[in-house]
Amino acid sequence: MKKIKELSYGIVGLGIMGGSFAKSLRLNVVTGGKIYACNRSTLCLKEALNEGVCDEVFTSDKVDKMLPLCDVVFICLYPHATLDFLREHMASFKSGAIVTDVSGVKGIFEESLKDFLRDDVDFIIGHPMAGGEKEGYAASNARFFVNHNYILCPKENNKKENLELMRYLITELGFTRITETSCSTHDYKIGFTSQLCHVIASALVESAEDPTITAFGGGSFEDLTRIALINAPLWTELFISNKEKLVSHIESFEKQLAELKKMIKNSETEELKKYLEDVRVKRAEMGAIVSIKK
Amino acid sequence: MKKIKELSYGIVGLGIMGGSFAKSLRLNVVTGGKIYACNRSTLCLKEALNEGVCDEVFTSDKVDKMLPLCDVVFICLYPHATLDFLREHMASFKSGAIVTDVSGVKGIFEESLKDFLRDDVDFIIGHPMAGGEKEGYAASNARFFVNHNYILCPKENNKKENLELMRYLITELGFTRITETSCSTHDYKIGFTSQLCHVIASALVESAEDPTITAFGGGSFEDLTRIALINAPLWTELFISNKEKLVSHIESFEKQLAELKKMIKNSETEELKKYLEDVRVKRAEMGAIVSIKK
Repeated sequence: MKKIKELSYGIVGLGIMGGSFAKSLRLNVVTGGKIYACNRSTLCLKEALNEGVCDEVFTSDKVDKMLPLCDVVFICLYPHATLDFLREHMASFKSGAIVTDVSGVKGIFEESLKDFLRDDVDFIIGHPMAGGEKEGYAASNARFFVNHNYILCPKENNKKENLELMRYLITELGFTRITETSCSTHDYKIGFTSQLCHVIASALVESAEDPTITAFGGGSFEDLTRIALINAPLWTELFISNKEKLVSHIESFEKQLAELKKMIKNSETEELKKYLEDVRVKRAEMGAIVSIKK
Repeated sequence: MKKIKELSYGIVGLGIMGGSFAKSLRLNVVTGGKIYACNRSTLCLKEALNEGVCDEVFTSDKVDKMLPLCDVVFICLYPHATLDFLREHMASFKSGAIVTDVSGVKGIFEESLKDFLRDDVDFIIGHPMAGGEKEGYAASNARFFVNHNYILCPKENNKKENLELMRYLITELGFTRITETSCSTHDYKIGFTSQLCHVIASALVESAEDPTITAFGGGSFEDLTRIALINAPLWTELFISNKEKLVSHIESFEKQLAELKKMIKNSETEELKKYLEDVRVKRAEMGAIVSIKK
């Protein structure tokens, strides 16, 4: 296996994700190699350079000079922008490069990638499960990924040794649980754990009558709506790109909610108690209750 | 005003709430006075005595010996059990005593209290907004209330100086925001911030297909379902005691959810983006996003 500390890495898009990859690579991995970054706006590029996080930075129009230098490229853009970027700059990647993404929907990659992916570029579909209400390079940090989950969606044509390198690299960056699955399963599960939760939190905020409601909060409302400080363009894209699976999850949830409402409305004490006892057992089985604060 | 550090306090029900009151009174308030506690099971009474948290403890059948000693009584039982307790032991309270509760529903107090409350006992309806998935005396602690909200529902016949004493006492125990409102407004607002959130978290857990779903979690699902480690008998009682207001909140939420689902289903990109932008602004206006971990 190649020595990850001696490889050169390229980050496309230096926001909270890209910035955290760069900082974490600098802190945990890279010694002999280089870290390059490319971004549309230049402010964060200057910062990354000044802080010693990156060795060289490129504005978007110069990215074709950066890509040939990189053994591993993290594309940290929105889902469709990631695909557009790949389509446009496919010719510039170094032969043998590993390229990966951070997109929260995967079905669109499975559909389009095969149309333009070069045989000598190994695209590994991945999803680092870290986020939060903050945005931008300023919010990125070297420990952003510690104890988080990573999902990989390996394809038949991914090289075994490159997948092995990715797993090793991800672990060095602080991720503790790597799950490998298909793009379709990814979108189904993420549609539940992430997208449905964002839909619920948003609907909950919108059903509040006034912002002073938090004077009556004991923590529950705050917990359920932390993620409602939502990045609207990104989540609009995620929801709509995965709408079929997401809508099916919303509908399962609506059914459970209607069931609970019926029991409450009709004062079905015993049934309700049994339902809530089942909830408690199920939630306990799901493991770690302590959420990771970002 | 009476000196709170020289008063004697009685705790009825030494669970997580009662235990935290006792410990917090000991740490922050009581010097000259005494702390008494009464509980059905004796294990926690012995602990509280050994730890020096209480000066004297009483089993439930001896509570009529405890009540005459107390200037201030915290009844830390479930809502209907609180009313039953008051009804049964009204004769035993010290003349001039301040008595208060911790119940999460208040309408039932407004309806029944007037039928049996003595003129020389000042019952102040209160709700310390602290909780969590843990239960019992073992989970109680002296700092449990720090930075939490307290709701008081003063009635016309509450003595001004006693209300003032309560506000002062509550602040000494660590609560930082006291809101005073009617029982009806309390139940309406709590129906939203607390009960609706517990209903949503429960429905979300039940709509999960399997407990391994957390391998796909990035924190959102964990945040939304922390409170699903629910105390079934207590929440059954809370939901059903406040069912009219709670059901109306569930229905407002269902409407917002249906609206979001429609936009996603029909790929209404611009409308969805606008909706989510509004969510973000509203949530930001609601203040403190950092939830207080219990």
